[in-house]
Amino acid sequence: MNYCSSCGHKISFGKVPEDDIPRHHCEKCGVIHYQNPKMIVGTIPYWQDKILLCKRAIEPRKDLWTLPAGFLENNEKIEEGALRETEEEANADVEIVRLFAVYSLPKVSQVYFLFLANLLNLDFRPGAETLEVTLFKPEEIPWQEIAFSSIKFTLEKYCQNSEPSKEKVFFGSSERGQLL
Amino acid sequence: MNYCSSCGHKISFGKVPEDDIPRHHCEKCGVIHYQNPKMIVGTIPYWQDKILLCKRAIEPRKDLWTLPAGFLENNEKIEEGALRETEEEANADVEIVRLFAVYSLPKVSQVYFLFLANLLNLDFRPGAETLEVTLFKPEEIPWQEIAFSSIKFTLEKYCQNSEPSKEKVFFGSSERGQLL
Repeated sequence: MNYCSSCGHKISFGKVPEDDIPRHHCEKCGVIHYQNPKMIVGTIPYWQDKILLCKRAIEPRKDLWTLPAGFLENNEKIEEGALRETEEEANADVEIVRLFAVYSLPKVSQVYFLFLANLLNLDFRPGAETLEVTLFKPEEIPWQEIAFSSIKFTLEKYCQNSEPSKEKVFFGSSERGQLL
Repeated sequence: MNYCSSCGHKISFGKVPEDDIPRHHCEKCGVIHYQNPKMIVGTIPYWQDKILLCKRAIEPRKDLWTLPAGFLENNEKIEEGALRETEEEANADVEIVRLFAVYSLPKVSQVYFLFLANLLNLDFRPGAETLEVTLFKPEEIPWQEIAFSSIKFTLEKYCQNSEPSKEKVFFGSSERGQLL
């Protein structure tokens, strides 16, 4: 951040009144430019004993496998975002069952929210950011080709605790310095 | 948003490549300025059959009651943010038990995450943004003086489902046009 997005003046970074955390702020117009973590929302679509994974068509982690997920948008409810991303990445129709995993990535200021979701039919196909959409049994999951630590964490917990009737939400996080 | 925070050029708003959602973007340097919802994280601190509420010292909703909560900061894990806010608002020492409520406010692009938390001692006192910190039995909660719809939702669910051993997370949201 170099310029004030409100008035265009050169930005300052440091102490602002009544706040212990240094902030980007404008000494001309007074606006404080807060920066906060982003939510990544998605689903674990399941069909009988299989779950749906997407092979990424874009960087980062192109050609590796992930769950359908992406950034929550302004004016969306969290569940709406998870359904939209599932549709965009995999053209998959799902019904949310419950929140399953929450995973923080403090280094890059992201928090993942993955919902267990009932796949309603098999009419899925890759979206623009996906090369391939496939159903995997737990023993078929390509563990060496999973795109992100958040997704690996979620899949591991799913394979260890697959009863959708249970209500427990699994919390995890990356190591301090870890990016993805 | 009027100016590019990266190069200071006048900002544009509209279609960007490979995206259905119009974005603020800079036609000079090419940066796309994504805007995403923010997380508000906090706790429901309980002590025997009572829960802790804070009377707000600041706007919005000054003089009304809330749970200790605030914006998650960059480089924080979600649970760390909830603990920090509980300390800042109420100087209360708690231990997180589990996630209890998730509440979306799409109109203002916020999502609340409230964690059930065991209050470890009674050495709480108001922080800078709090006038008063008090323990309430369920039947003593001042329902007409609760600051936010997210907090009213959470307290209602808590009073109806107070067994901390259960794992269910309650999801709610404001009406489409509702601000707080």
